[in-house]
Amino acid sequence: MSLTLHEDRYFGPDARQIEVARELYRAARDLPLICPHGHVDPRLFSDPDYSFGTPVDLLLIPDHYVYRMLYSQGVPLEDLGIPRLDGAPVETDHREIWQTFAERFYLFRGTPTGLWLTQELAEVFGIDERLDGDSAQRLYDQIAETLNTPEMQPRRLFERFNVEVLCTTDTATDTLEHHQAIRASGWDGDIRPTFRPDAVVNLDSPGWRESIDRLSEVSGVAITGYPAFIEALEQRRAFFKSLGATATDHAALTPYTAPLSEREAGAIFERALRGEASDDDARAFTGHMLIEMARMSTEDRLVMQLHPGSWRNHNALIFEHFGRDKGADIPITAEFTRNLRPLLDAFGNDPRLTLILFTLDETTYARELAPLAGHYPALRLGPPWWFHDSVNGMQRFFEQVMETAGLYNTAGFNDDTRAFLSIPARHDVWRRAGANWLAGMVVRHLIDEADAHEMMTDLAYGLAKRSYRL
Amino acid sequence: MSLTLHEDRYFGPDARQIEVARELYRAARDLPLICPHGHVDPRLFSDPDYSFGTPVDLLLIPDHYVYRMLYSQGVPLEDLGIPRLDGAPVETDHREIWQTFAERFYLFRGTPTGLWLTQELAEVFGIDERLDGDSAQRLYDQIAETLNTPEMQPRRLFERFNVEVLCTTDTATDTLEHHQAIRASGWDGDIRPTFRPDAVVNLDSPGWRESIDRLSEVSGVAITGYPAFIEALEQRRAFFKSLGATATDHAALTPYTAPLSEREAGAIFERALRGEASDDDARAFTGHMLIEMARMSTEDRLVMQLHPGSWRNHNALIFEHFGRDKGADIPITAEFTRNLRPLLDAFGNDPRLTLILFTLDETTYARELAPLAGHYPALRLGPPWWFHDSVNGMQRFFEQVMETAGLYNTAGFNDDTRAFLSIPARHDVWRRAGANWLAGMVVRHLIDEADAHEMMTDLAYGLAKRSYRL
Amino acid sequence: MSLTLHEDRYFGPDARQIEVARELYRAARDLPLICPHGHVDPRLFSDPDYSFGTPVDLLLIPDHYVYRMLYSQGVPLEDLGIPRLDGAPVETDHREIWQTFAERFYLFRGTPTGLWLTQELAEVFGIDERLDGDSAQRLYDQIAETLNTPEMQPRRLFERFNVEVLCTTDTATDTLEHHQAIRASGWDGDIRPTFRPDAVVNLDSPGWRESIDRLSEVSGVAITGYPAFIEALEQRRAFFKSLGATATDHAALTPYTAPLSEREAGAIFERALRGEASDDDARAFTGHMLIEMARMSTEDRLVMQLHPGSWRNHNALIFEHFGRDKGADIPITAEFTRNLRPLLDAFGNDPRLTLILFTLDETTYARELAPLAGHYPALRLGPPWWFHDSVNGMQRFFEQVMETAGLYNTAGFNDDTRAFLSIPARHDVWRRAGANWLAGMVVRHLIDEADAHEMMTDLAYGLAKRSYRL
Repeated sequence: MSLTLHEDRYFGPDARQIEVARELYRAARDLPLICPHGHVDPRLFSDPDYSFGTPVDLLLIPDHYVYRMLYSQGVPLEDLGIPRLDGAPVETDHREIWQTFAERFYLFRGTPTGLWLTQELAEVFGIDERLDGDSAQRLYDQIAETLNTPEMQPRRLFERFNVEVLCTTDTATDTLEHHQAIRASGWDGDIRPTFRPDAVVNLDSPGWRESIDRLSEVSGVAITGYPAFIEALEQRRAFFKSLGATATDHAALTPYTAPLSEREAGAIFERALRGEASDDDARAFTGHMLIEMARMSTEDRLVMQLHPGSWRNHNALIFEHFGRDKGADIPITAEFTRNLRPLLDAFGNDPRLTLILFTLDETTYARELAPLAGHYPALRLGPPWWFHDSVNGMQRFFEQVMETAGLYNTAGFNDDTRAFLSIPARHDVWRRAGANWLAGMVVRHLIDEADAHEMMTDLAYGLAKRSYRL
Repeated sequence: MSLTLHEDRYFGPDARQIEVARELYRAARDLPLICPHGHVDPRLFSDPDYSFGTPVDLLLIPDHYVYRMLYSQGVPLEDLGIPRLDGAPVETDHREIWQTFAERFYLFRGTPTGLWLTQELAEVFGIDERLDGDSAQRLYDQIAETLNTPEMQPRRLFERFNVEVLCTTDTATDTLEHHQAIRASGWDGDIRPTFRPDAVVNLDSPGWRESIDRLSEVSGVAITGYPAFIEALEQRRAFFKSLGATATDHAALTPYTAPLSEREAGAIFERALRGEASDDDARAFTGHMLIEMARMSTEDRLVMQLHPGSWRNHNALIFEHFGRDKGADIPITAEFTRNLRPLLDAFGNDPRLTLILFTLDETTYARELAPLAGHYPALRLGPPWWFHDSVNGMQRFFEQVMETAGLYNTAGFNDDTRAFLSIPARHDVWRRAGANWLAGMVVRHLIDEADAHEMMTDLAYGLAKRSYRL
Repeated sequence: MSLTLHEDRYFGPDARQIEVARELYRAARDLPLICPHGHVDPRLFSDPDYSFGTPVDLLLIPDHYVYRMLYSQGVPLEDLGIPRLDGAPVETDHREIWQTFAERFYLFRGTPTGLWLTQELAEVFGIDERLDGDSAQRLYDQIAETLNTPEMQPRRLFERFNVEVLCTTDTATDTLEHHQAIRASGWDGDIRPTFRPDAVVNLDSPGWRESIDRLSEVSGVAITGYPAFIEALEQRRAFFKSLGATATDHAALTPYTAPLSEREAGAIFERALRGEASDDDARAFTGHMLIEMARMSTEDRLVMQLHPGSWRNHNALIFEHFGRDKGADIPITAEFTRNLRPLLDAFGNDPRLTLILFTLDETTYARELAPLAGHYPALRLGPPWWFHDSVNGMQRFFEQVMETAGLYNTAGFNDDTRAFLSIPARHDVWRRAGANWLAGMVVRHLIDEADAHEMMTDLAYGLAKRSYRL
């Protein structure tokens, strides 16, 4: 993987298309970054002495995009320093881990992870050398040294990266103490929480009962039944909103929605409190609560995000030894036309609701999502998600969604990452892929350059800002 | 959206590909238009004084492709003059409606509707200015003025558009009085009806019982049971054929087919007459009648079209207030391999049958439809339908279908439109997209130029004409 | 179809991409062919006097890719000399059949079959003329004459084609006498068997009971129950391995897997022996045996291949008159995330297992297969299969799989063909499509040329060799 970042990368290959793309990209390159959905830890910004640790602490151990690929090629997670739940020993020599990684960096050729890492190494760490077994220790030194400089303080990087606003993702029971600390610190970086209630809404979440107790505690509402549960959620949403939240986020195995009566919902909730909820109960309750969350959004105007379709923790052995979010989540087929109909029946025509849909099943782009978003006022489509957050994934999204949904029913980009240092590279891929898509339409005379310039600004900045009410 | 129509639009971007595409396109550009499937009102041609009304009557109110996009961005249908079923007031000032539309015409950037409208405004109305809030009233005047000229008489446009034949779509109970009037008028434009029996074949069609009474009336067959129903349908098919029909058309939620015994079919039909048919009855009866319709086609040689996969009237509120065909039909997944097997078992090898398949689920192109059409003599594949009738949709169709099905198992283009004035633009997109696809194969040496020229003529003209026996 | 083979065919269309592709291709063009999966008859190499028969015997009668297309356009299989099961007369005049074929060779424009045949005619038979009705008899003569030369002896072609290793596919009960004869002959061509136990593992295989008797016979294990069945399979695997096999192959309608207890498996097997197994039994047993086969692979290290998703013998009439493998197999949707989980639970993390997955449902590429292969150490992805073994099919595979799975979790190419003479053309399409894909990344600066050269060698040679342990 070359570490030379070509100024025309990801454009073309047609020469006239490259020329137009370059011009569009230049006009958008320096726009501030809007980061409306992601998983950056707010402690980066609340703790003025925050340190990223070693190069391995920064780039490998927290990034399941990276170590899943090494694992797929036979490297045990223990050898990469990923901590085991049972405390069994794992490799602790970070130089050794780095060497293992560097020798296999060729596995990332042509992958988005490869592109992001390459750009991050170049632009944040000034590295213009290929990472491989030979250069491994030299580059380790260079990264480690840079990490020790004051320029690597997260607040300074936030400014250097030109981030206008960054939203974190926080459980419904989070006290948002780090968000409060950021606000109290006097630093004016715009960091906002996002309300994610999966752990209390999905009855089959591990530790659900404890999460409910915690929800009682933080909300001050004794959750003895369904009405109190709803009240507590509304209380938490108001609290999140008071700290700047403009959105909620919801995960579900499928986008199934169906309303329950107050009585039915109450009965299921009580069974769950008694530890007696079935799988069917859990599915029905999630399907009901998604509608209930849409209802709340029409009242408090928090933008609603739905991320369905990931089969979490597919690999039982990895889950048992290492826990969740270890690169073993696998997509399944998704169905929106039937599943979302009850929610849309209730609130799809309501101008107060914005529901942003994501998918890991690209077959739904042209078949279901674009037609739905091209009709219902409440709907917007989020950018390509996770495995599809890539040069080809974006091209498929543009080509399969935009003709039917129209650009203005999409919600711009979000980086959806835990890796703060990769944020500029991720937005850069989007801006370049977007410029190239628009340039392709310009040179084929589907749109003119004036249109393309306005669309470029919206793709890079305006759509995300407006869709998330930021 | 620029209103300058570039002569090389939709070609490329590669310069050599553009050159070859241009040459192929030129050879096909002036071939007559074959319009074997669409929804143009035959009154345009039976009434010598037919008027299109205002620009809004022409371009917006009848076109759900247009107003669904405005609705998705928060414009109430009432503000666009779409009539409500309850007669509640809607906007009647067409200049005001036009202004609302013009200010939002940017929403159509990069969409097929944008391309068609732009070309229609340019070529039919001589407009070379961008439609936006500023130009709105000026262009309204220009369109309104042109609409009042004798050149805008539909029969003259039919000739100017170089339409060789245009097939309408008509319910089984239609008396085809407009078709009869056209024939009686002495005008020699070739307008033909198409037999579409969904309203009597799908037991769950709204007003099914009244449609059956109407079928009794127009056929002169008292429909007291299933055998009489079949007899009445055969009578109507013969009547349609006598007025030039060469095809039938069938919609169904899925392509499910399965034969019933005469006794089973009769029992379901009698339950339906008594108003007691269940959802399962309706599904079983449609699945049976598709095979029965194929049987009739082997006898009368009417080409059979199947359009499955659209969930009609997805938005309950819009359906309640405005009725059907209001831009709220959403595709679902389709499955052909299992579903069509019983029909193909019965008639798939019969040289008398031509069954043309359409889909809104592009995943079936390469997986099911191309392998099926590349084997069964009775099958042909229709062009990209509805949301996929677009530059990218056509490219996906060409790339995913042709390698396996072969060009000669496809059925050319049809415009499938109610908007008569958009017909030239729609065929133009197909011819350009087709030329570009072929040019791409020529410059990559997959075919030579002589092949490409023959394929171009077939794509633009021959395949539709032969497949529909026109 | 032009018979001039352009040296840059399938590259581009962008000129810089062509230049890079050409250079990559040249570096890989002369690498030996690794053929780890296919259906060439080993008799070609065991019988020193093997003859290919007439041009029709060689190119048409055994190739359902060819005659399915003619059949789809109304040519009866009888007219093409395809033998009927009932012995009813079929056309025997091969010059007449050839004429019928040649007059319709235009049907193959833009299809992979067209490309392969064109290249085969040019490179094996020296034909530089277009095959059509006029040239038919002249070319028949030329092919027939060439077929009579000593250069057309299969062993000499094997060497001329630069095949390094060729694996056949053989039923579990095969005595591998031809493989033994090849070994005994002293010829050093590397021909290996592959163990395919479908006929004994899938209880609903036609003639299952007879296959079990045959398995008893060849293994020397009296199969009176499930434990003996397993023992016999293990015995056969060892026998295949002793003759060079490095892999097994498994077909199933779906990739469903689920373990049965020894008792459950035994009960089903006994029902099957008594001729009383149900459809559910068959499905459960196949789902269990796939896991059992993976278990055996962890012990004997045979690489496991899984080819699911083909609905065999879709056309009942053709099956009745002509039997299986007559171009009437149609793909269905596939689902891997849920279905493979039990197998992966058991052996997905086992470094001894390599399981190579194939699909006819391209929607699984990006959604399921790439994420699975990008995580589980045991998984590799096979190349585009059957209908997707084409220029466009390969491009879709590269674009949809590689970003997530990474190149190194794929298994290179295999030709999967019965048609020995088409092997060089098939590998050539892969090498050219691969070079073009890599070149596209080079010119868009996603990878550099040094990376591309290494990837090219792996695509063309290394990945297949290493994945199949050859």
